[in-house]
Amino acid sequence: MPLDKLTIIGAGLLGGSIGLAARARGLAKRVSALVRRSGSVADCQALGIADEATLDPAAAVADADLIVLCTPISGMAGLAKRILPNLKPGAVVTDVGSTKQQLVSELTPLCAGAGTHFVGSHPMAGSEQTGPNAARADLFEGAACVVTPADTTDAGALAAVNALWAGLGSCPLEMTPSLHDLLVARCSHLPHLLASALAKRVLDPAHGEQQAQLCATGFRDMTRLAAGSPVMWRDIVGSNREDILAAIDEFADELGQLRGLIAGDSPEAIEAWLHQAKVARDDWGRSAAND
Amino acid sequence: MPLDKLTIIGAGLLGGSIGLAARARGLAKRVSALVRRSGSVADCQALGIADEATLDPAAAVADADLIVLCTPISGMAGLAKRILPNLKPGAVVTDVGSTKQQLVSELTPLCAGAGTHFVGSHPMAGSEQTGPNAARADLFEGAACVVTPADTTDAGALAAVNALWAGLGSCPLEMTPSLHDLLVARCSHLPHLLASALAKRVLDPAHGEQQAQLCATGFRDMTRLAAGSPVMWRDIVGSNREDILAAIDEFADELGQLRGLIAGDSPEAIEAWLHQAKVARDDWGRSAAND
Repeated sequence: MPLDKLTIIGAGLLGGSIGLAARARGLAKRVSALVRRSGSVADCQALGIADEATLDPAAAVADADLIVLCTPISGMAGLAKRILPNLKPGAVVTDVGSTKQQLVSELTPLCAGAGTHFVGSHPMAGSEQTGPNAARADLFEGAACVVTPADTTDAGALAAVNALWAGLGSCPLEMTPSLHDLLVARCSHLPHLLASALAKRVLDPAHGEQQAQLCATGFRDMTRLAAGSPVMWRDIVGSNREDILAAIDEFADELGQLRGLIAGDSPEAIEAWLHQAKVARDDWGRSAAND
Repeated sequence: MPLDKLTIIGAGLLGGSIGLAARARGLAKRVSALVRRSGSVADCQALGIADEATLDPAAAVADADLIVLCTPISGMAGLAKRILPNLKPGAVVTDVGSTKQQLVSELTPLCAGAGTHFVGSHPMAGSEQTGPNAARADLFEGAACVVTPADTTDAGALAAVNALWAGLGSCPLEMTPSLHDLLVARCSHLPHLLASALAKRVLDPAHGEQQAQLCATGFRDMTRLAAGSPVMWRDIVGSNREDILAAIDEFADELGQLRGLIAGDSPEAIEAWLHQAKVARDDWGRSAAND
């Protein structure tokens, strides 16, 4: 049964893709979008992201059953405070933020105090591209989407959020906010920072022009994430500091072990190390049809 | 003017792609391939990699103007010794090895002593896939190909090797073997080892099943290189140890700087660091139309 009204707050890559997918899949009778610039109202209409796009928070969320915060994480709590007075009782608020502990602990009591429910989400889909033009109706298809209930989470609200993500084509996966943050520090935040460190250091102008000319497809793939938004990633790093520091330390430890094998000139041990990495990667690629 | 005969020694991804491209582009009247297994003779014929494929080294290189060693680097010197007695005087030998100093210093006098010429090459094209079935006629198109003359290199032989790579669609780029090894340690060998370290550590079974389920497209791209051949990469690492150790140390230094910014909770400095990485990556992607 479709929702009466689904509201997306922010119509960039993720918000826009939710709008496109929800409309394509008939998840709601009406999809509404709250945007910040009048140009974005026209974008939403031209791209088919929402039935109605507005700059007015009250109009955007009025009578909405489900509201998805799709702005940078640093602005989510402020936005939630602005829209809460206009939500209908029992409305469910979720989000797409890349870290969950901080947000869940802040928004859960805030929403509860206004007679509504907050349930955190994090769809594991994205792109280094941003903005409504990068939005795609199939962005979430087959992707995992973490849903992070708190101890106090209402069962109906949790079911509604799981149903939203399943309806958009993704695979909901429940875990605590703290486990989520630990796991994504390793498999999402760490890779991003490695890509940035690699691009920054290898392309140092001191290495000369020929250095850049020798960078090929392997380098291209290994640095693509470095093109992401510095502001967005600054906020992600700020909201998951301890887990990210631990992930960096784990990685540095692994790289240090390899360095020791190379320095010790141990071909068999290097081959065994590379083989172990290959098996892990191959198994992952096969098991989830990730390749 | 096409060569009378071009011989590829080894018909895997690179050798096979040279054969396909040389035949498609009419670079030689005859393309011959030396392979190790009788099944590979049939593969070469079925895939159109060579006009003639053989297990017999003498037949493969007889009357060849240009011979390209396309085997793993650890076997190249041994192979060169086997074929040298059968080369015609003045024949030019090149290779596709990922490291150059060791090979150039070994093969240059060896070939010169037999009245032939060695000029090292390294096409910056490849794939984590291997074998003749992965070969493609367009593999080298638009890719840089490093050609590494030694002080004693014959000008005609150098021109022939440059012409081969230009004829295959790539962009020849001359530099010394030692500069080549330094630059590829940073932009090719280091990324490979980072991909392996990331796959190995993140997918550690101790992290639980949900860890693998949260690995998404960013992780996929950042670990794809880890699927490469452990034996081939063991040899690459062994033949470029000092430069690779230096590249690992440079990278660890960069990551350590970032770690310091995160530990110090400096959002502005983290954003500036991320911004610098993004600018470097964006400029590279644009300048070379690499994306």
